[in-house]
Amino acid sequence: RRLLPLFLGLFQGALLLFFALFVTYDEPSAQAENASQVANKVYSTFPFFQDIQVMLVVGLGLLLTFLPRYGLSALTHNFLLLNFSMQWALVLQGLLHHFHHGQVQLDLHKLLISEFAAVTVLISVGAVLGRTSPCQLLIMATCEIPVYLASEWVIINCLGVLDVGGTITIHVFSCYFGLGVSKALFRAGQQPLHPKETPTPGSDLMSLVGMLILWVFWPSFVAVLCQPGDAQHRAILNTLLAMSAGAITTMVASSLLERDGRLSPGHLQNGSLAGGVVIGAVADMAMPPVAALALGSLSALACVLGFRFLTPLLGRKLALLDQCGIHNLHGLPGTLGAAASAVAILVASKDTSRSQFSQQALCQAAGLAVAIGVSLLGGLLTGATLRLPCLAQPPEWLCFDDSLYFKIQDQAKNPRPGNTTEEGALALKE
Amino acid sequence: RRLLPLFLGLFQGALLLFFALFVTYDEPSAQAENASQVANKVYSTFPFFQDIQVMLVVGLGLLLTFLPRYGLSALTHNFLLLNFSMQWALVLQGLLHHFHHGQVQLDLHKLLISEFAAVTVLISVGAVLGRTSPCQLLIMATCEIPVYLASEWVIINCLGVLDVGGTITIHVFSCYFGLGVSKALFRAGQQPLHPKETPTPGSDLMSLVGMLILWVFWPSFVAVLCQPGDAQHRAILNTLLAMSAGAITTMVASSLLERDGRLSPGHLQNGSLAGGVVIGAVADMAMPPVAALALGSLSALACVLGFRFLTPLLGRKLALLDQCGIHNLHGLPGTLGAAASAVAILVASKDTSRSQFSQQALCQAAGLAVAIGVSLLGGLLTGATLRLPCLAQPPEWLCFDDSLYFKIQDQAKNPRPGNTTEEGALALKE
Amino acid sequence: RRLLPLFLGLFQGALLLFFALFVTYDEPSAQAENASQVANKVYSTFPFFQDIQVMLVVGLGLLLTFLPRYGLSALTHNFLLLNFSMQWALVLQGLLHHFHHGQVQLDLHKLLISEFAAVTVLISVGAVLGRTSPCQLLIMATCEIPVYLASEWVIINCLGVLDVGGTITIHVFSCYFGLGVSKALFRAGQQPLHPKETPTPGSDLMSLVGMLILWVFWPSFVAVLCQPGDAQHRAILNTLLAMSAGAITTMVASSLLERDGRLSPGHLQNGSLAGGVVIGAVADMAMPPVAALALGSLSALACVLGFRFLTPLLGRKLALLDQCGIHNLHGLPGTLGAAASAVAILVASKDTSRSQFSQQALCQAAGLAVAIGVSLLGGLLTGATLRLPCLAQPPEWLCFDDSLYFKIQDQAKNPRPGNTTEEGALALKE
Repeated sequence: RRLLPLFLGLFQGALLLFFALFVTYDEPSAQAENASQVANKVYSTFPFFQDIQVMLVVGLGLLLTFLPRYGLSALTHNFLLLNFSMQWALVLQGLLHHFHHGQVQLDLHKLLISEFAAVTVLISVGAVLGRTSPCQLLIMATCEIPVYLASEWVIINCLGVLDVGGTITIHVFSCYFGLGVSKALFRAGQQPLHPKETPTPGSDLMSLVGMLILWVFWPSFVAVLCQPGDAQHRAILNTLLAMSAGAITTMVASSLLERDGRLSPGHLQNGSLAGGVVIGAVADMAMPPVAALALGSLSALACVLGFRFLTPLLGRKLALLDQCGIHNLHGLPGTLGAAASAVAILVASKDTSRSQFSQQALCQAAGLAVAIGVSLLGGLLTGATLRLPCLAQPPEWLCFDDSLYFKIQDQAKNPRPGNTTEEGALALKE
Repeated sequence: RRLLPLFLGLFQGALLLFFALFVTYDEPSAQAENASQVANKVYSTFPFFQDIQVMLVVGLGLLLTFLPRYGLSALTHNFLLLNFSMQWALVLQGLLHHFHHGQVQLDLHKLLISEFAAVTVLISVGAVLGRTSPCQLLIMATCEIPVYLASEWVIINCLGVLDVGGTITIHVFSCYFGLGVSKALFRAGQQPLHPKETPTPGSDLMSLVGMLILWVFWPSFVAVLCQPGDAQHRAILNTLLAMSAGAITTMVASSLLERDGRLSPGHLQNGSLAGGVVIGAVADMAMPPVAALALGSLSALACVLGFRFLTPLLGRKLALLDQCGIHNLHGLPGTLGAAASAVAILVASKDTSRSQFSQQALCQAAGLAVAIGVSLLGGLLTGATLRLPCLAQPPEWLCFDDSLYFKIQDQAKNPRPGNTTEEGALALKE
Repeated sequence: RRLLPLFLGLFQGALLLFFALFVTYDEPSAQAENASQVANKVYSTFPFFQDIQVMLVVGLGLLLTFLPRYGLSALTHNFLLLNFSMQWALVLQGLLHHFHHGQVQLDLHKLLISEFAAVTVLISVGAVLGRTSPCQLLIMATCEIPVYLASEWVIINCLGVLDVGGTITIHVFSCYFGLGVSKALFRAGQQPLHPKETPTPGSDLMSLVGMLILWVFWPSFVAVLCQPGDAQHRAILNTLLAMSAGAITTMVASSLLERDGRLSPGHLQNGSLAGGVVIGAVADMAMPPVAALALGSLSALACVLGFRFLTPLLGRKLALLDQCGIHNLHGLPGTLGAAASAVAILVASKDTSRSQFSQQALCQAAGLAVAIGVSLLGGLLTGATLRLPCLAQPPEWLCFDDSLYFKIQDQAKNPRPGNTTEEGALALKE
């Protein structure tokens, strides 16, 4: 039971050591011109950065609170993993940088890049939410960040893939990493429905608020790394159009698929965001606005259909557990976005340089293949590691329950609180 | 039951067609100077735009969750209507623009204008919240957007009314449109209090959070379209002052009007925002700061008095149903703001150009009259349309209930969940 | 019972009078160059300002909703106090300014300074949350603002203390002011645990969301008053690092201190923010990034240890009541930050000007002493004033209960609602 603080404490110590040895700030420049340049850089980046922080800390955290008795854990684990993964990515990127250039000079841009790395972890854990201990999640983050950095380096720097919003490098990668972990960790596959797994209207409402926060700030996530000016402007507009079309298509699809035309809250919580996933790879490309609308609609449709048909199928055939349906929100729209980026490049090609454009389109496809391959492999290996008994996987009857990780008063809901505490204590001793 | 997806699906198809035919992005400019200009434009508009999105999607959505068993519907219908109305306004404005200038070039400013149009719908539906089906709300949006665009064109372009924060064009218009719809739709008038209509402390808390989000970001809404520089600075300060004075006056008034000096959550949720409604028409005018404080206090007072005396009176005398009290939050403060703008113009007039100023003050009054007249007429006609039986108005005993529109598990609150579902199924078949 | 509206009404009247007599806006400048300068100023300040508003209105409000039956009151009193204190600080600062320079010209910067003054009140009331009436809280704000302004003037202007993020002037001051009030007001000291005092999982979740909102926007609070350019950039980065390290250290410490390694929600809600408190005094100084990490970790450790050991000790030995544990979140990290600023100055000193640096370090210590001394004295006197019987302190059995201040329907939770209302009416008559 002391493994979690031990691990985190050791990591914090190592982080301090690394920062003490290698990390500095830029020397402040003496010239007034440079100072104003730095100020303008801060003013142009910081609002985007804050938007992304709200998305990850508040929006994504709330989105995961759809499990009615697991809200504190979902919020807290999300928050812990964001901080841990961001720091771990800072260290790894700093090490690489250090060996090339000596000192590491920290700035807002480097922090932002590390946040993007952390996003992959936050997405991947969605596959195993509620059935894993914080220790397991931390080990998962520890493994995922270096694999992501390597995969991202190959995709962007070696293959030259265009992916400003992280559709391939972040969404596709993290989806298949998470599914790989889930497959290797839960070999027995889907359990019968757990009684604490069903959302209540109250928890669905909180999760819906989280979705809305993500929906509002998503354009900042896609556009923050774009070239300032026309490209960034276009990225913002394309994201807004795709997300707006996706939101409406989700309602159409969900209403058609459910009995009596009722909407499923789960469809809304995920499908409305699919437009943001799909648009990342093409957001700043030269394509007409109608393409953004069409991609947003298609991805939302794919997401809702995935929830309705593919997730149960994967559960039955592959015994695959995907608690939050990350394959529907990140895998399917991400793959669609990668394909769309190849098509957009081909369509934009002029006669004079057709071969060059075709090559770039092939690179996009290769990037997708690398992302899927590397992440699946990495995920399977990580999942196997997580089966180590010392990592305190929660027993089935204490899954999806805050009382295992939090000191809370739950008399109102548990008729026999003493019992639960004893159960928890027993489980912790095991 | 298939009407909603059918209608939305057809609309999405038409939207795609329209975008494919007419809508493009600006050609990226080759010159570095222009690129930096575009970048600066994005940096100066985008934070305001995001603030407004948070207001409409999260703030207004949460404000409407005061109905304890209707939270999912309130959030979702608000989100659906925002997206639909924004797209519909884009199409209509694009058509007008197309016939004048050929291609429509999409930019952030045009999206913002469409969002403003969508706000009118979101306000109007407050009058009939909980007693209408999504189909009815969509038809209402379909009718309201063109009426709004025509009315706004007459008020701003023909009459030359000054109204930077939309007090007349948005708040007054949408209030009387909503009341017109309500009057024509519910001819029988107020029903006895519905058992699911009473807020709980939990739902009041969520609604209060929504109010606070709206309160915080309101200055962005008022100032986004102002002339950059002094006028925008003044608009921000005036809005902050008016909303701060309004918040305190609301507590004074509510505490004086209620038995034992207790506060009514409903008063707080609405009165605290009245200052933002009233200030829109005068925010960027040359008037002393004390005027903003006084207007904020007066409007909050009018709003709370309206809830206490006018709403019950209108219910009794005119059989008028106003579920969220939009007349108190938008009608009374909006009218007050229009009058204030005329007075502010008269006071500011110098001897040399008195007649010109008097004429402008008359225009403000004429604008108010146009807004009220057009919206009432349009609302009554729209409300009559909504009585069409195919639009699936919910029966009285299923009003204010999420289970009619959402696939949810509600065992905890319904002792006999089977019953409710059967009731719902019956209602849907009718 | 009419004291609250009477007091607020009189204050609003005085505010109007003061604004009418003394307050104006800057004359708009005729030159285009100046207009663009004003516009740039707005664009560079306003996003920070909005972030801070979200923190204070939404974030801090939600953080205080951990009392399960006191959520409406916590949110509303926080909102009321923010508005009242901000206006009161505007008046006092305006008076001072008026007597020096004639007219008071209002701008966004002056409003921001008043908000900072209001923050002290919002922190101080944490010590007595739930056991005080709104009247008492308003009197407390009335007393605290002038004491704060005087103390801040001595610390910053006379002593020349460096404290860009308000560690000494705001956090330390408001902590000891609040504790002074609590000590003088509740002489009998800690009561036995009140049955309504224990958080539920639902109220802990809301409070956790409030913490996360504060956590995200804290860098804006620290950096808004920094010199634009390198110093502001460094302040943002230092705050991010300190808060990230603090968040992880909180989990380590809480997990080690609680039985079975469970986390305490209260520790998370406070400890994760300690890094933001400690970094305020040193955020823009020239120190290596590792110092920010170390300070964040140390302050979070101090905060959690304070909750575990110091708060119970102070309760037993000094009979001191500290409802929200403000001494752990603001007192301990604030003192640590003040000490760190002195050390950072000493370390940065070069041989040539060592004596000058030593003097500055002494000033930092003197500033801390002034903040503690003045606030304790002011708090004790204020607390004694709050014992006036006309201020309607709630009786013990109606503490922590919304139904005393709000007209709410609480049947679901109260088996005998009639009883409660009667009790309340009785209490109000007393």
